Amino acid sequence: MRISELSRRSGVPVATIKFYLREGLIPKGEATSATQARYSEDHLRRLRLVRALTEVAGVPLARVRRLLDAVDDTGLGLHELLGTVQYTLSAGEAGEADGEAPQAERVEGLLAELDWRVSPFSPDRRALGRTLEAMDQLGFSPDPGLLARYAEVAHGAAELDVAGIDPDAPRERIVEYMAVCCTLMDRAFASLRRMAQEDASARKLHGRAYEAEERRGDAGAADAAGA
Amino acid sequence: MRISELSRRSGVPVATIKFYLREGLIPKGEATSATQARYSEDHLRRLRLVRALTEVAGVPLARVRRLLDAVDDTGLGLHELLGTVQYTLSAGEAGEADGEAPQAERVEGLLAELDWRVSPFSPDRRALGRTLEAMDQLGFSPDPGLLARYAEVAHGAAELDVAGIDPDAPRERIVEYMAVCCTLMDRAFASLRRMAQEDASARKLHGRAYEAEERRGDAGAADAAGA
Repeated sequence: MRISELSRRSGVPVATIKFYLREGLIPKGEATSATQARYSEDHLRRLRLVRALTEVAGVPLARVRRLLDAVDDTGLGLHELLGTVQYTLSAGEAGEADGEAPQAERVEGLLAELDWRVSPFSPDRRALGRTLEAMDQLGFSPDPGLLARYAEVAHGAAELDVAGIDPDAPRERIVEYMAVCCTLMDRAFASLRRMAQEDASARKLHGRAYEAEERRGDAGAADAAGA
Repeated sequence: MRISELSRRSGVPVATIKFYLREGLIPKGEATSATQARYSEDHLRRLRLVRALTEVAGVPLARVRRLLDAVDDTGLGLHELLGTVQYTLSAGEAGEADGEAPQAERVEGLLAELDWRVSPFSPDRRALGRTLEAMDQLGFSPDPGLLARYAEVAHGAAELDVAGIDPDAPRERIVEYMAVCCTLMDRAFASLRRMAQEDASARKLHGRAYEAEERRGDAGAADAAGA
């Protein structure tokens, strides 16, 4: 296909495609004349991945390049490839890796209790430690039991995430799924969680009002609270 | 207590406290001389809340003010107060409320299927619609069944969130908890989820390698993969 069709099918403007070509983020097409080139389905897949990483997940170009190297390195197993994706996506949040990781023992203890297989190099160990430290400073330190319950819920979400991976799909597509899943699915989940909080609050806190009204025998108010 | 003690106990610098006082975000202390004032536990609580909202949750000052009005309006029930907190925190993400909400029918259908009590004015309806639209455009549209399973997991997290609310605590403290819970707990949850993905991937995808190695009768490699 020509660059115009590549643009149409990917939804990426021609100028952006040309920029990606110049930056070497997608390979050059097969030249058909001095000014034209032909592109394949491989180009389309790569283009979609680059767009998902840069525009959706907000990954800087230098890190996109490193990630593409991992996609091309077919010696790298799928689990290792996913690790590279995750660590690339988490690196920004985890902050500088210099110095001692905050709350490292607490994070270590939690992972041990959960019996999770997490690499000692996961940037999310540090990211979690930093967040726990911030919560401590505000006087909202979750106790280990509560943290473990949140972790179990998080594992439920992660199982759905990983179940969505088709190990036989092209590597670009798998990485694109992970990038989308780690960002857009996270965002969708945050919305769902806040709406679920509203529902849980309606049931728990409205419930309290409802019972209080019922005890007072005020049926009208009870109907209103339960509506 | 004097402003210096207020600063020490809250961890907020004196200059920042003075700024909050000028902006009317915390009430003036009781004047003890022309240049000094005395502050109470109420001031400390209010100060902690303002800090959590501005520094942790990143809420703009104008919206902090509206939220404090809701805290002071004791005619507002707890469920309504929490709604105000959530909507204030979500407003940025949901984008402009002008025009038709994207994917409104799909979000409506999901909430109906889940039987969640969510106000028609929740900004997260719009936020979720926008995220689903973005996923569609990338060709990763979760089907209704999968979305409902994610929603159920999100409800599990929300139940833990709401269970942490102590209805008898001071209103400032409850709002502070919700703000912290909606931001720092979200961040902690994202870290937990990514580590859980690593664990789930290790079990699912390494498992595949493990079985493949075992079928080949290569016990050494199987041990290595399973380690």
